[in-house]
Amino acid sequence: MSKNLPDRNKEFSSWYTQVINRAGLADYGPVKGTMVICPYGFQLWDNIKEAFDKMIKTTGHVNAYFPLFIPKSFLAREAEHVEGFAKECAIVTHTRLKSDGDRGVVVDPESKLEEEIIVRPTSETIIWSMYKKWIQSYRDLPILINQWANVVRWEMRTRLFLRTSEFLWQEGHTAHATAEEAQQETMDILELYRQLAEDYLAIPVITGLKTESEKFAGANKTYCIEAMMGDKRALQAGTSHNLGQNFAKAFNVTFQTKNNQEELVWATSWGISTRLVGAVVLTHGDEKGLRLPPKIAPIQVIVIPISKNDQQAVEVKAYLDPILLAMDQSGIRVQIDWSDNSPGFKFNEWEMKGAPIRMEVGPRDVQQDNIILVRRDTGEKLVLGKKEVVEKVPYLLRKIQKGLFDQALKFQEENTYKVESYEKFKLIMKKGGFVRCGWDGTVKTEAKIKEETKATIRCIPFDEKPSGLNCVFSGNPAKHEVIYAKAY
Amino acid sequence: MSKNLPDRNKEFSSWYTQVINRAGLADYGPVKGTMVICPYGFQLWDNIKEAFDKMIKTTGHVNAYFPLFIPKSFLAREAEHVEGFAKECAIVTHTRLKSDGDRGVVVDPESKLEEEIIVRPTSETIIWSMYKKWIQSYRDLPILINQWANVVRWEMRTRLFLRTSEFLWQEGHTAHATAEEAQQETMDILELYRQLAEDYLAIPVITGLKTESEKFAGANKTYCIEAMMGDKRALQAGTSHNLGQNFAKAFNVTFQTKNNQEELVWATSWGISTRLVGAVVLTHGDEKGLRLPPKIAPIQVIVIPISKNDQQAVEVKAYLDPILLAMDQSGIRVQIDWSDNSPGFKFNEWEMKGAPIRMEVGPRDVQQDNIILVRRDTGEKLVLGKKEVVEKVPYLLRKIQKGLFDQALKFQEENTYKVESYEKFKLIMKKGGFVRCGWDGTVKTEAKIKEETKATIRCIPFDEKPSGLNCVFSGNPAKHEVIYAKAY
Repeated sequence: MSKNLPDRNKEFSSWYTQVINRAGLADYGPVKGTMVICPYGFQLWDNIKEAFDKMIKTTGHVNAYFPLFIPKSFLAREAEHVEGFAKECAIVTHTRLKSDGDRGVVVDPESKLEEEIIVRPTSETIIWSMYKKWIQSYRDLPILINQWANVVRWEMRTRLFLRTSEFLWQEGHTAHATAEEAQQETMDILELYRQLAEDYLAIPVITGLKTESEKFAGANKTYCIEAMMGDKRALQAGTSHNLGQNFAKAFNVTFQTKNNQEELVWATSWGISTRLVGAVVLTHGDEKGLRLPPKIAPIQVIVIPISKNDQQAVEVKAYLDPILLAMDQSGIRVQIDWSDNSPGFKFNEWEMKGAPIRMEVGPRDVQQDNIILVRRDTGEKLVLGKKEVVEKVPYLLRKIQKGLFDQALKFQEENTYKVESYEKFKLIMKKGGFVRCGWDGTVKTEAKIKEETKATIRCIPFDEKPSGLNCVFSGNPAKHEVIYAKAY
Repeated sequence: MSKNLPDRNKEFSSWYTQVINRAGLADYGPVKGTMVICPYGFQLWDNIKEAFDKMIKTTGHVNAYFPLFIPKSFLAREAEHVEGFAKECAIVTHTRLKSDGDRGVVVDPESKLEEEIIVRPTSETIIWSMYKKWIQSYRDLPILINQWANVVRWEMRTRLFLRTSEFLWQEGHTAHATAEEAQQETMDILELYRQLAEDYLAIPVITGLKTESEKFAGANKTYCIEAMMGDKRALQAGTSHNLGQNFAKAFNVTFQTKNNQEELVWATSWGISTRLVGAVVLTHGDEKGLRLPPKIAPIQVIVIPISKNDQQAVEVKAYLDPILLAMDQSGIRVQIDWSDNSPGFKFNEWEMKGAPIRMEVGPRDVQQDNIILVRRDTGEKLVLGKKEVVEKVPYLLRKIQKGLFDQALKFQEENTYKVESYEKFKLIMKKGGFVRCGWDGTVKTEAKIKEETKATIRCIPFDEKPSGLNCVFSGNPAKHEVIYAKAY
């Protein structure tokens, strides 16, 4: 099975698509640009979702649900916002089909809507139209609402999980009485995103500020977590926006302060999506398929029983049953594969699916009171006594979790370059990697570099040290130290 | 606050809408027919969702996610299916907006789609187009997939939770090798729905079969759970469909049997929706607002601290802290209301929101080592010693859960009539209630009764006893004993 995976170093893109298909994460949907999330991929997303949902609830956020449909006029209220989303909208114009004899079913022209409806690409406008109803006084603030939902941004160039017309995400939309509070919320959420990426997905990220050209349409400031994928490209893995009073202005949302003043409300919004599943594949995958971080793996331990006949199978099962029960009771996500396939087939299949630990048990192990464990991340084989396995597995899972993170961090560091000349810059953009360099702060430089190398400023990292640097392109004194890379 | 609720006995419909608004369950969205599910309502739905998600996972089902967008031609493949949904579709025809000077933003006519896209009203067609790819052999069966998703059915007459253009639901779609297995699955799921309704929502239901006129568009058989609401109308609370080979035929999904035969696959589908939140309100609500069954209540115990000054507040808090911690640790969903409002205001507010138990503690209780508990369902007041409260609350919650169910069951039984004459039938349909009676099995009788009384056959109950009965309308020998009612 895994023999036929395309070479990850030469054909990264088809390697990616094949891993996703063969591991059972996703499939293409019938409408161009759409995707089906298969059960194994959905469980992975659900684990990510659950981890983040806990984080935001612990910090006082609540979930709600707003309509899929946005009146066209709402989108138009915030000028930059509509500019950013106008070219990739799904627009509902009719509400009825009718039979048309031989031609089958056609749209009934009489069902044309007076005002067209936009399928939400993001929900700032519809949510702020509701906040207008809900906010009167400082007592109504802050509002800390999140929603888990599907959104649509029309896409022609599909890439599973990374770029699809419809995707699943969470979008937080908060309302505050002061600018400071909104800024604090924006940063607090970014920190939660960093924790989710690093502590759960084992993906090291760079945190920083987007430039004006790269920020969210409608935001004052966009902060992000950026990660390096296995092909050394950057992936924007999450964004947190300080929206200032832009949407409050657009929807005229004011509140009465403690001093009886009328003021516009301050806002943030922030999102992560099923794109993170793609990030996990692109960061940790290898020539055998997926490698899943234990904290989010649907199955942490896959058990492959080995037997040549029914008698042996009965023995192996009797030997394994109490072990599986004990593992299950101690919260380990364990599953046994009793399918008819050969052990070799199963090894390959579960390597493809990235289960962190494979547990093998055959008749000889039963005799010797042994269990064999194989780590998916390193291929390391361990022979354990039956009694120590339940105790040892959680320890091993933590080790794998850390191992994957360390490996990804090392890769990111080895492929990040401090560069001072544009010649070197271009060389690195050819072979791949992140560049840390000076930028003169002008849109012109940013655009020119993008045009010539396809690289974009991923962010102005929080730990920038611009003093003494010159712009890698113009040679002028740097306004910022930035991270440049080609991005997904 | 609660003083102003409309009289539940005279204006049930506006009572319903006001309870939903004031309890913070939902609000109207800006597009006609849409609804916003507010945080408290969403948590209620999430608790229902979580309960059912566990049930289906325990029985071997897995979650996945299929696209929102269905090609128009797919819907047309199953004749009854398209007939059933054609008149209430949201149809996407364009994908781009453009600026139009003074007129603002308009739909770009050049972005017209070649084939129009339907926003899913239900997902049989898109899912079976995928099953066509996924199923080759009997080894690929059964497929037991569920999805939690939003769906759209265009509605002009909105009623919050009961009838909205967009709603949230789960839809199960299973594929089987035999007709028997599909039928078994259909019935197994119906039993889970019954358990969910009765054991979690405390809503007694009647289980049975829908008539041909009332079944799902595309099903062979539709089974349902039907409940009686507080105004004696019926609400269809969940449906489980045996789809036979209809969708397999429409999408040409065959599989190779063990004997190397090529056969069409057998299917089921089944769903429950946010409508259940409406059912909870309509079943258990009273003149003070909501009464929530403890198993699904977002907050099971609301604590109202009572104090006249800061010193007292400090004392009450110190007294309460360890109790709240202990309750939280034993898994009770407890919250304390420290807002500035008066105790009376808080009592009314939390009665409106239906928290099953109110806990009051003031300075005198602190001195006497007491806690006062008030049951939302009966209004009964209990004075407990501080030490027994953590132990007593779970017992009380179970008692409230059972009390609500028993009360609803009694109401249902008292308002269900065995009737033999059409005159009595009409009388009961006027004053409200369920009628159990004979039906001659003809569509004509069904249609005529609907026309004259607005009552429909809710189901042919599994415990029907048709022998010896005559049709209430035609007087001919009854083919079935059925349940008649006016329905939501």
